[in-house]
Amino acid sequence: MERISFQDCYADDLSHCYGCGRLNPDGLHIKSYWDGEESVARFTPRPYHIAAPGFVYGGIIASLIDCHGTGTAAAATYRREGRDMGSEPKLRFVTASLKVNYLLPTPLGVELVARGRVKDAGRRKVTVSVDVIADGRICANGEVVAVLMPEGMKRA
Amino acid sequence: MERISFQDCYADDLSHCYGCGRLNPDGLHIKSYWDGEESVARFTPRPYHIAAPGFVYGGIIASLIDCHGTGTAAAATYRREGRDMGSEPKLRFVTASLKVNYLLPTPLGVELVARGRVKDAGRRKVTVSVDVIADGRICANGEVVAVLMPEGMKRA
Repeated sequence: MERISFQDCYADDLSHCYGCGRLNPDGLHIKSYWDGEESVARFTPRPYHIAAPGFVYGGIIASLIDCHGTGTAAAATYRREGRDMGSEPKLRFVTASLKVNYLLPTPLGVELVARGRVKDAGRRKVTVSVDVIADGRICANGEVVAVLMPEGMKRA
Repeated sequence: MERISFQDCYADDLSHCYGCGRLNPDGLHIKSYWDGEESVARFTPRPYHIAAPGFVYGGIIASLIDCHGTGTAAAATYRREGRDMGSEPKLRFVTASLKVNYLLPTPLGVELVARGRVKDAGRRKVTVSVDVIADGRICANGEVVAVLMPEGMKRA
């Protein structure tokens, strides 16, 4: 059975995100899933996503943490409300703040695994901490404060 | 006279950064310059760098702050040492941590202006705060803690 990612449950008109939108043909297509109480996204940077040769660019790691964090915030809220992912009204979170700590140079050419945990969940604001793992080592960690998308962004 | 950006002074073998490397043909080519005591980078996101339609993706804003912050760290260190940008030994900073606050949805289709200020400068660690301005409004701000690139990253 093919699994449906958190981001695949976003409304069509909010599925153009460069990081994770299924309707953005030029995007990164980051996809997140539950793994018990944690959320997981697996992403292999492209060969040109370089910081220095051999290592992944920090902005890509930030993007992975960002989209995995907002996706996890939406999924956790559906779960907390006892609703199926993607049921109406559809939930879409955006990032209020993002923090990334680069702990080790992250090797290019291997799959990155982002593991998220909900630290704090309110009705409109969810804080998610994320580890980014390469070759079994945590190369970066971070935190996303995600808030429900303001109505003004939906009407653009 | 054409101005030389901070990033154009990086060593050739450390000029492949996806965010700012002049030798990465697929990269964003973020370029930073002094403007008095502040540093400035101007960057227009591509049409597909979308969060929701009409607004810029947060990961691109994080990338702009990241590369502008590390570039400013290098430039500030040359300046503090009384050396020309790019003189030997060449300086290259990487990001130890990155914080971004998304204050307003950032409009797509206009030039973003990143303005940096050095908050704290040590010999190997420089902290830079950055505002990101679109249409005259600060849409995001953040902070980069930049450290001299570890030798292990240079030898990869």
